[in-house]
Amino acid sequence: MTVPASHQDLLTRPLFGHLATTRPDGTPQVNPMWFSWDGTALRFTGTTTRYKYRNITGNPAVAVSVNDPEQPYRYLEVRGVVTSIEPDPDGTFFLSLAERYGFAMDGPPADVADRIVYVVEPRATSSQ
Amino acid sequence: MTVPASHQDLLTRPLFGHLATTRPDGTPQVNPMWFSWDGTALRFTGTTTRYKYRNITGNPAVAVSVNDPEQPYRYLEVRGVVTSIEPDPDGTFFLSLAERYGFAMDGPPADVADRIVYVVEPRATSSQ
Repeated sequence: MTVPASHQDLLTRPLFGHLATTRPDGTPQVNPMWFSWDGTALRFTGTTTRYKYRNITGNPAVAVSVNDPEQPYRYLEVRGVVTSIEPDPDGTFFLSLAERYGFAMDGPPADVADRIVYVVEPRATSSQ
Repeated sequence: MTVPASHQDLLTRPLFGHLATTRPDGTPQVNPMWFSWDGTALRFTGTTTRYKYRNITGNPAVAVSVNDPEQPYRYLEVRGVVTSIEPDPDGTFFLSLAERYGFAMDGPPADVADRIVYVVEPRATSSQ
């Protein structure tokens, strides 16, 4: 699965991804999230105490929408699957995202013990 | 269902709403959309030939995420239901959205005959 080269910048720039998941009742949930992209997978930080964790462990299909703040009609949607959920007990991944987004932190967040990483493999994209 | 007064501006300003719907296979789809808000319902323009129409007629539960370009951690999620789908054969609603978003149009869009309006009634919100 390849992301079109024309829209890769929307994943490499520190933009917010609006991450859609599915709630246990089958209805969608969506909110802006930090993410990283290594050319193969998207990664998001979360905690095991949030609704999103309940949603994703129930249904690993997700979709992400990113648009370009300078050209808002330009966007990329990535549909994919959370193929693994990795622990982040030291907040290493969280802090790497904070740095990517220029968000000053004195150290790991208060909820670091519950921190996890969602690894999302793309399955399809749409873009404009 | 009320939207918190603290975040109503995210619906009245001409921002993009990342609209999540559910595909027939149960996986989510999400992309940025124009919308309007009259204090009671959100309205989106669409056409009967798009995947979104197929998704919504199959499952009317939707969710919308809007964040503040000036303060990107400030966001509003509205979860709701498409309670009606209205024809827009003259493109009147489409053109009102184009005007709201400052998008210059010479007249109705080419696909005006297929244009419809999704009326979304909020059922729950989350915000930060």
